Amino acid sequence: MYNTVIIRYGEIFLKSEFIRREFEKKLIRNIKKRIGDASIFRKRHRIYIKTENAKEVSERLKTVFGIVSVSPAIKTDANVENITEISLALAKKIIRPGERFAVRAERSGRHDFSSKDIENLVGEEILNSIHGRVDLENPDKTIFIEVRDDLAFIFDKKIKGLGGLPYKSQGRLIALLSTGIDSPVAAWMMMRRGCEIVVLHLGNVNEIKEIMNRLEFFTDEKIKSYIIPYDKILEKISEHSGRYTCIVCKRFMYRIAERIAEIENAHGIVTGENIGQVASQTLENLKVINCLDIPVYMPLVGMDKEDIIKIAKDIGTYGLVKGKKCDYIPKKPVTRSSEEIITKIEEEMGIERFIENVQDNFILKKGPSR
Amino acid sequence: MYNTVIIRYGEIFLKSEFIRREFEKKLIRNIKKRIGDASIFRKRHRIYIKTENAKEVSERLKTVFGIVSVSPAIKTDANVENITEISLALAKKIIRPGERFAVRAERSGRHDFSSKDIENLVGEEILNSIHGRVDLENPDKTIFIEVRDDLAFIFDKKIKGLGGLPYKSQGRLIALLSTGIDSPVAAWMMMRRGCEIVVLHLGNVNEIKEIMNRLEFFTDEKIKSYIIPYDKILEKISEHSGRYTCIVCKRFMYRIAERIAEIENAHGIVTGENIGQVASQTLENLKVINCLDIPVYMPLVGMDKEDIIKIAKDIGTYGLVKGKKCDYIPKKPVTRSSEEIITKIEEEMGIERFIENVQDNFILKKGPSR
Repeated sequence: MYNTVIIRYGEIFLKSEFIRREFEKKLIRNIKKRIGDASIFRKRHRIYIKTENAKEVSERLKTVFGIVSVSPAIKTDANVENITEISLALAKKIIRPGERFAVRAERSGRHDFSSKDIENLVGEEILNSIHGRVDLENPDKTIFIEVRDDLAFIFDKKIKGLGGLPYKSQGRLIALLSTGIDSPVAAWMMMRRGCEIVVLHLGNVNEIKEIMNRLEFFTDEKIKSYIIPYDKILEKISEHSGRYTCIVCKRFMYRIAERIAEIENAHGIVTGENIGQVASQTLENLKVINCLDIPVYMPLVGMDKEDIIKIAKDIGTYGLVKGKKCDYIPKKPVTRSSEEIITKIEEEMGIERFIENVQDNFILKKGPSR
Repeated sequence: MYNTVIIRYGEIFLKSEFIRREFEKKLIRNIKKRIGDASIFRKRHRIYIKTENAKEVSERLKTVFGIVSVSPAIKTDANVENITEISLALAKKIIRPGERFAVRAERSGRHDFSSKDIENLVGEEILNSIHGRVDLENPDKTIFIEVRDDLAFIFDKKIKGLGGLPYKSQGRLIALLSTGIDSPVAAWMMMRRGCEIVVLHLGNVNEIKEIMNRLEFFTDEKIKSYIIPYDKILEKISEHSGRYTCIVCKRFMYRIAERIAEIENAHGIVTGENIGQVASQTLENLKVINCLDIPVYMPLVGMDKEDIIKIAKDIGTYGLVKGKKCDYIPKKPVTRSSEEIITKIEEEMGIERFIENVQDNFILKKGPSR
């Protein structure tokens, strides 16, 4: 029956007309990337798609960033006869004998009927021909009617989307991706807020291939990534740093990310850092690790591990992480390091040389691995 | 009936014995701050409180940071007779005729019975004397039995707590608090992760008094705060900055926060910043705003407004925000500023002078307002 998909986005936060139009333009671009060319039209803070596969298309669209909810719907002309007829036909299909139902109408534009009129009329028609009963508080099924100027949309479901902002509507970040639970969630959260990401992984490509694929499920495009072999560097760091290894290692990663940010014209980096989860993540250590001039975004910083795991499961990265423990974590990692000690270690091992080497041979010469 | 409260914390993430003991010590300190002196004992990753007001104490403790869940319980000796008798008495109290119930036992220590034995025995006893039926999948009521060495705890509810880490277990942050929805949520999230906060508000004390009181509900102690009159400074900023006002204003606030961080020995600042919510919050602008040497934590940066409002309602700050719109927001705020333009504006207006003035007269001379 459905011939249309209704797409809702966070319009209440798009107060300026200009920003709203920009938002819509980018959202439509991303919708087309997801479902291919489609017959799309706009009307009063909604985007609509004309399609014979409205259910399937709705399912595919609900994971496009920026979409708050979708509904497979039946589009018709905004007159009482059409609305009643189609609402009744839909009701007959979905309401089973004895079930409680509600009719909810809303309207914008000029009409010679009110929302209440429609609700009463359709409600009565349904009662006359179906063995159901009205329950506005706690219905089993609801018939929704949205009248927009000359058109009416009739539907029975609002399928929740991911919300957020359209991918690539907000500039670019370098995402430090490890093989753990946290960093893919952090990257995903910033992607959901419209930021394009370029991935940096220190290790090998196989470790993160599946996670990358999963993240690309949301973007419908390849995510650029820099993969930099790390074993030998980390060995060296560990030799020189002892109990400070995790801090020196992170500063190294941050600095490589900063180099890539310059090349990729990115506005910051994003990491899965979290307060107090492991020894290196005290406020004291994070202050020392945070050695960059560009912003480091840590969207998980105020969350519990439990919350992070929940998101990882929801977005499908949880099952893909390797969870291999780093061999170089010291037995008793330092919880309170200082800038002085760390810079001394870095100087002794000549860390600049390692950074320049990575810069020359992997960032500049080799470039992104895809 | 209840004579004990069981307190559970996120023990699975406290792998080292030393860190766990530190955590427990701080949690117990905070528990005592909430409920006064109490008879507390520890046993195998649980904290217990002996009390005749177990229900009321549980309700009060569920909002202490670091507590994952609490249960009013009945403590008894770990022998089969006692356990059965008390479980039956509790069952008689809570299971109504016809209801489905389950018995769940777990055990650690050495005993001459297994958890399964207990479940079967207690289940049978209940069936014999109550008109209920067993349903392990979807029970209306559950009798939980936790055996710990020589003690057994019998209860029927796990009341969810806030999780997180004990307040003041993780160092100190300066929290920029405005009169809006976001910043109290940001401060609260870092508090929940164990960070002590010192508040900085640019404005007057009345605007944020209620929010401060609400945040102090969670800490059971006064939160130190610096309140700095801002009208005249903001007027000046606006005069010089035009469309760049919000950016210059934020940089000013950040710098004041940094000064206070030095004095208060804090490890960073926390703000309610969020990507793309308002014009000043583009990645380009945030990069310019982020002008400090110390870390700026933005726990809301990856969240939707909807998520933030939900937390604000849950923690009780939503109804307290004044939501007054700033009079100085430009009609068309700049979405892409640059460091060069902003520093030029700052130099022209002699912003250093304003910072020094605030430093001398409000931070050093006047100090925290409480």
